[in-house]
Amino acid sequence: MHLRKSRLLTPGPTPLLPSAVRAMAGADLHHRTRDFRAIYSGVIEDLHYFMGTANGIALFSSSGSGAMEAAISNLFSPGDKTIICSAGKFGERWVQIARAYGLQTVVLEKPYGQSVSVDQVDTALRENPDTQGVFVQATESSTGISHDVQAMARVVGGTDAILVVDAITGLGSSVLEIDVWGLDVVIGGSQKALMIPPGLAYCSVSEKALERAATAVNPYFYFDLRKHIDAGPNGDSPWTPASSLILGLADVLQFIREIGRDHLIQNAQMLARAARQAAQAIGLELFIRDAIPAGAVTAIRAPQGLDSSEIVQGYKDQFESIIANGQGSMKGQIFRFAHLGYFDFHDLFATIAELEIILHRLGVNLDFGAGVKAAQAVYLKGLTDEDGGAP
Amino acid sequence: MHLRKSRLLTPGPTPLLPSAVRAMAGADLHHRTRDFRAIYSGVIEDLHYFMGTANGIALFSSSGSGAMEAAISNLFSPGDKTIICSAGKFGERWVQIARAYGLQTVVLEKPYGQSVSVDQVDTALRENPDTQGVFVQATESSTGISHDVQAMARVVGGTDAILVVDAITGLGSSVLEIDVWGLDVVIGGSQKALMIPPGLAYCSVSEKALERAATAVNPYFYFDLRKHIDAGPNGDSPWTPASSLILGLADVLQFIREIGRDHLIQNAQMLARAARQAAQAIGLELFIRDAIPAGAVTAIRAPQGLDSSEIVQGYKDQFESIIANGQGSMKGQIFRFAHLGYFDFHDLFATIAELEIILHRLGVNLDFGAGVKAAQAVYLKGLTDEDGGAP
Repeated sequence: MHLRKSRLLTPGPTPLLPSAVRAMAGADLHHRTRDFRAIYSGVIEDLHYFMGTANGIALFSSSGSGAMEAAISNLFSPGDKTIICSAGKFGERWVQIARAYGLQTVVLEKPYGQSVSVDQVDTALRENPDTQGVFVQATESSTGISHDVQAMARVVGGTDAILVVDAITGLGSSVLEIDVWGLDVVIGGSQKALMIPPGLAYCSVSEKALERAATAVNPYFYFDLRKHIDAGPNGDSPWTPASSLILGLADVLQFIREIGRDHLIQNAQMLARAARQAAQAIGLELFIRDAIPAGAVTAIRAPQGLDSSEIVQGYKDQFESIIANGQGSMKGQIFRFAHLGYFDFHDLFATIAELEIILHRLGVNLDFGAGVKAAQAVYLKGLTDEDGGAP
Repeated sequence: MHLRKSRLLTPGPTPLLPSAVRAMAGADLHHRTRDFRAIYSGVIEDLHYFMGTANGIALFSSSGSGAMEAAISNLFSPGDKTIICSAGKFGERWVQIARAYGLQTVVLEKPYGQSVSVDQVDTALRENPDTQGVFVQATESSTGISHDVQAMARVVGGTDAILVVDAITGLGSSVLEIDVWGLDVVIGGSQKALMIPPGLAYCSVSEKALERAATAVNPYFYFDLRKHIDAGPNGDSPWTPASSLILGLADVLQFIREIGRDHLIQNAQMLARAARQAAQAIGLELFIRDAIPAGAVTAIRAPQGLDSSEIVQGYKDQFESIIANGQGSMKGQIFRFAHLGYFDFHDLFATIAELEIILHRLGVNLDFGAGVKAAQAVYLKGLTDEDGGAP
């Protein structure tokens, strides 16, 4: 019998920052007080640092899907034509929300594991010059790909359309220069690189985008972008905020200021590189093809003849760890584990050692330690790249 | 830059059980209430299960050294002759306490890394038939050895002396059959296999030992064995107890009942086996010689020409993990990491992968992944031994 600690290796929710968990316990307070307003306005200010933007930021007590809905209900009207990049489950969610609000959708669909190209978006924009908005995932966490959001912003920037980016998984795990690249709406959530539980969503909105709110007609009340953007800097939220999560977020954002936002992103990127190298060293095939791999999550194909559910179940049964199966049609085909937010090389080394054991017990022929060795090499290479090898 | 989570790999304090940490937060209570008495008496009852004894148990709000002192101040008088097995720093502590209370000490000393043999104890008892007590460490955590307490109890049992066992590190990480073997006094602490912070000590006392308290003359007040043994089952402590730790202990003991005390011990023993195999696969030399290795902690020699402090520092600087250096004269010679209490194979795999990296960066030639592979083999062997290979 082995003791097995429960561990979360999913691309959201992610492992919690211990100091944030402690901070969340201090929530016996009232949100309409000077003390709480100071915390709340500090969170908005720190979100500007974390997101790297001067655009207004709306912070909602909701999951990320709430902020996705806000972008559509506040900024578009029924009949507006939109182009939606759909390369996985969350691309499909854009389509669902857009249709719920009566938008016309031109869907650029790619099979799971691939990404929508800039050329596709460019062509679609030329074919649909009346397009009002382009929707994309910075990171599609269902498949582990990233979109080339920078290049897409360039082609969208020359039109009247706005670019709406679901960066719920991408923020803090990939480079996103909101102001430099000109990303109109960028959406994040609390349970990803921000290391706290689900329950908060936030989005930055450019002036170009916000101007649309004045004339757009669609009903909304709770997810009022303008109201939230205006109230936040004064420490106010239009409605009662999820105060314990706000306390946790305040703590996490302080932590990220200390380590540096760029370093948080580098950490995820380096772990992702190590995960990919390890998987290949074990003899596994990465799921993505002709796409930029995500920093947040790595999707791996189950070996021929094996159902990926068995690997997911192996992590649970043997190590009490939760990894993700494929979603939708990819269920049983791929498995995914995350490395964003509060995740380090210690976590990765063990996760790989466990993967080797699980695969071996499922009958896969492999060299024990080979995957770990590949991850160790990436760690060491990272040290060398950084500072010539000093600790 | 890598994110580095702080981790505790020392043989006490050990990683905390999360549910116990949460339970400890509930300490805004009064200790002289019916509710708290129910918790306290339950803890005493569960300690009987954890220790595996029907002997009376005293629970002190103190570190383990307090219970060591209690055994000496309550049960011995100045001038009493004692035999002390000393094979490390904690054997030396027995000598210090015994001398502080005016006892005569026959010290059976062994170099660090070795253990005192049963023959030595047997011979010393024959040479000193007026011996009143024999003192030993079940596990000497400064060196990673275990003493053959079972055999020692056999030779002491035939005399008037009592056997006093410091099992602070040994309880929950090695098999100790207190009643079957006839161990008169057995001492434990909270920050070892019990997975909570330091601050509680406990000891079981046989009737043979407790009888000595009636006639022994030495001053004591706080560490009154009889008072604590009598009060505990009624939910009382003679003095104000460390209530948050009691709440944590209640939670941990429940956890141990669920997984089973024998399984907790097996877990530590299997991790210890994996740690030893891994160290040797890396090409390192184990510190112990001609001794039973501890389940709690593994001591490893630094490679020739290397100061073990550099390895300890490597864990801290590169991975924010705390391992232990050698103590006393062994400082710089050996390093030690623990695997008792709330510790699993995930922790061990990563600890070994990190050791390989640290040694490599200190110039040691090694095969990356070899240590991890050896640990994986022990894990898999354990599964096979248990149930023919089922998950």
